[in-house]
Amino acid sequence: MPAPARSAPYLPGQEEIRRQNLGAVLRHVHLHGPTSRAELTGRLGLNRSTIGALAADLAAGGLVTEEPPTVALRAGRPSLVVSPRSGGVYARALSIESDRLRAACVGLGGRVLDLREVARPPGMPAADAAGPLACLVRDMERGLAEGARCAGGAVAVADTTRDADGRIRIGRADAELGAALYAEFPADPGFVAGDLADIAALAEHARGVAAGTDDVVYLHGDLGVSAGIITGGRLVSGHRGHGGKVGHMVVNPGGVRCGCGSRGCWETEIGVAALLRHAGREPGTAGLAAAAAEVLRAAEHGERTACAAVHRVADWLGLGVASLLNVINPGLVVFGGSLRQVYAAGADVVHRRLDVSALPASRERVLLRAAALGRDAALIGAAELAFGRLLADPLNAGVAAREETGLRATDGGVP
Amino acid sequence: MPAPARSAPYLPGQEEIRRQNLGAVLRHVHLHGPTSRAELTGRLGLNRSTIGALAADLAAGGLVTEEPPTVALRAGRPSLVVSPRSGGVYARALSIESDRLRAACVGLGGRVLDLREVARPPGMPAADAAGPLACLVRDMERGLAEGARCAGGAVAVADTTRDADGRIRIGRADAELGAALYAEFPADPGFVAGDLADIAALAEHARGVAAGTDDVVYLHGDLGVSAGIITGGRLVSGHRGHGGKVGHMVVNPGGVRCGCGSRGCWETEIGVAALLRHAGREPGTAGLAAAAAEVLRAAEHGERTACAAVHRVADWLGLGVASLLNVINPGLVVFGGSLRQVYAAGADVVHRRLDVSALPASRERVLLRAAALGRDAALIGAAELAFGRLLADPLNAGVAAREETGLRATDGGVP
Repeated sequence: MPAPARSAPYLPGQEEIRRQNLGAVLRHVHLHGPTSRAELTGRLGLNRSTIGALAADLAAGGLVTEEPPTVALRAGRPSLVVSPRSGGVYARALSIESDRLRAACVGLGGRVLDLREVARPPGMPAADAAGPLACLVRDMERGLAEGARCAGGAVAVADTTRDADGRIRIGRADAELGAALYAEFPADPGFVAGDLADIAALAEHARGVAAGTDDVVYLHGDLGVSAGIITGGRLVSGHRGHGGKVGHMVVNPGGVRCGCGSRGCWETEIGVAALLRHAGREPGTAGLAAAAAEVLRAAEHGERTACAAVHRVADWLGLGVASLLNVINPGLVVFGGSLRQVYAAGADVVHRRLDVSALPASRERVLLRAAALGRDAALIGAAELAFGRLLADPLNAGVAAREETGLRATDGGVP
Repeated sequence: MPAPARSAPYLPGQEEIRRQNLGAVLRHVHLHGPTSRAELTGRLGLNRSTIGALAADLAAGGLVTEEPPTVALRAGRPSLVVSPRSGGVYARALSIESDRLRAACVGLGGRVLDLREVARPPGMPAADAAGPLACLVRDMERGLAEGARCAGGAVAVADTTRDADGRIRIGRADAELGAALYAEFPADPGFVAGDLADIAALAEHARGVAAGTDDVVYLHGDLGVSAGIITGGRLVSGHRGHGGKVGHMVVNPGGVRCGCGSRGCWETEIGVAALLRHAGREPGTAGLAAAAAEVLRAAEHGERTACAAVHRVADWLGLGVASLLNVINPGLVVFGGSLRQVYAAGADVVHRRLDVSALPASRERVLLRAAALGRDAALIGAAELAFGRLLADPLNAGVAAREETGLRATDGGVP
């Protein structure tokens, strides 16, 4: 089905085409690692001299290195290998999760240069995390290679913001958090904020189990449940950026009350609290997540009540996934966070439920997979988001080494 | 949130740019009607001489006319007005609905030149509709202006395909239907098939209540319920084109069995059969749709049982809409088909349910509206789909009057 009508014609000039080509070369080595000029020529459909000039410009800008291959495969002059300068250009990647704050410096090419985390005190507002996260970042930055330049930052925020009255308010804290981070890093390229599930979905799509699949539902379980939904290769952000709150699909109208004020939301049946409830356990002092992990471990060892609880959650998991298959028809569903373990323990239950509740047309061609990047998905995705501006316009994003190239650059210090 | 990474650079040549510009001019007058060259210059951001040349080429190709304005507004030479040749270029638009088959010839610019319909016998497979529909089309075509050329065809198929055992099978009939239509019109540009709700959504997005809104859920009620979902300006078709089967979201796991084999699907609570069930009525000989219309009329006149039935359906309608708001965060929800009347009669009930079950962030900025194009949305949308190839490449789509222009054209006779 073609896209709805658009009026504006697309008219790139020479500069725009060069910018796109520089971005394509840098993006390729960023995602796929060291690549020879000859291979880039084939992959990107550009001629040899163009690739040579683009790679040379990126190297002069300090974004890539060019070196002869360690092993020459053919006779004649070997094609130079273009590699991202992981140690020289990095992103600040942050995540605010239900029980901890995490920060990483991720080099161009996706290599995690350093990673730190601290506990998040229960009830700490997301905006208050800016200070502790900035400490972690500064501490890591002292250990980076001299002259390393920051391409940008991004923060993945788990979907746990609540009003004073306890009702879940999605999105409210983003502006405050942005301002707090800007206060910590006023001179730098600033931070992009996004929902943790959206950002983890981008990570799995760029470097994980969803690479190469254009219609993906990534489900992330924590205290709440949300999704990063990719259709036609693009993230569904929705009208105001609040898409993917699948934890608040009503699946059981006669069920228990949800923190959002509604009743029978999906997360009341598949979140970590549901797992504990079905297992007849209390959260204890270690917190919900730790207690839920305990139930999953007990189920692995065959403990009866724990197994029954996991099965019950897996059945509800299957029911909601069936609805999402029918509505969105993804080619792949990825289970992340606590749902990774629930799926691992109850995959057969999930599949049986899909056989009943998903339409054959939507069920027969879908793959269900555990997330590949584990807990780091949010940080890896945040780095991808942070590198976005650099990859869109490599030599003008305020990151390239201008003094070395003499290129005229626009001001990159936009918060 | 930016789109996930793509490697391939975009390198349009002169021919590609000209093609895009021709498409932009033709699309503009197709969607917005007669427009002066001066206005096109402003709207499309192209210079005056470029617009003049493009309009002249489209006129030579028989796709537009150029005439002086009927009233000159300023002194000096008036800017020519470019109009789509509605009578000269048309699309074959078909719809296969639960109780009838409809066909229209729709001129470039969206004018319905002629429209016919016949009853669809209960249980008639979609593929069997090709013959009767072809008769309607041929009959209409005899009345069109001499030399009128067909730009293509499209057929909107209501989501009612069932297996021999009665289970709903989405998508199975499309290939058979395509082959049957091709057998009826072997020499012509062929037909595109799509889900009726998807196609009606495109119509509302191009020419109806959703024009200018990029995140839309269009809900279509008939025997079943399905949706056309547009996010970021693009239709969500899903991995295999089966997206939007919202009628099979499970909203009431303890509810009645659905034709798909599951239990408590949304359409078991908001489809026309649910309306009859809640009103304690039988379908009668006139069919489900007619009996449901009777309940809605009785509710309008204040009949108690009918009112209670409409309220109950409206409450379930609100519950499912709440889930869709939370998952997709649209800016607009459009009610079409039988749901148009349910919403008109029970809007207050729907809104009360949203207040409870939709997240404030998703609820506060959404508009709920009745469909604007009524029953014709499917045909208008099918015409938009059918014109797609012409609008993408106006002078090479096998439609433009080649003999007049002398342009070299690719073979347009692709089925």
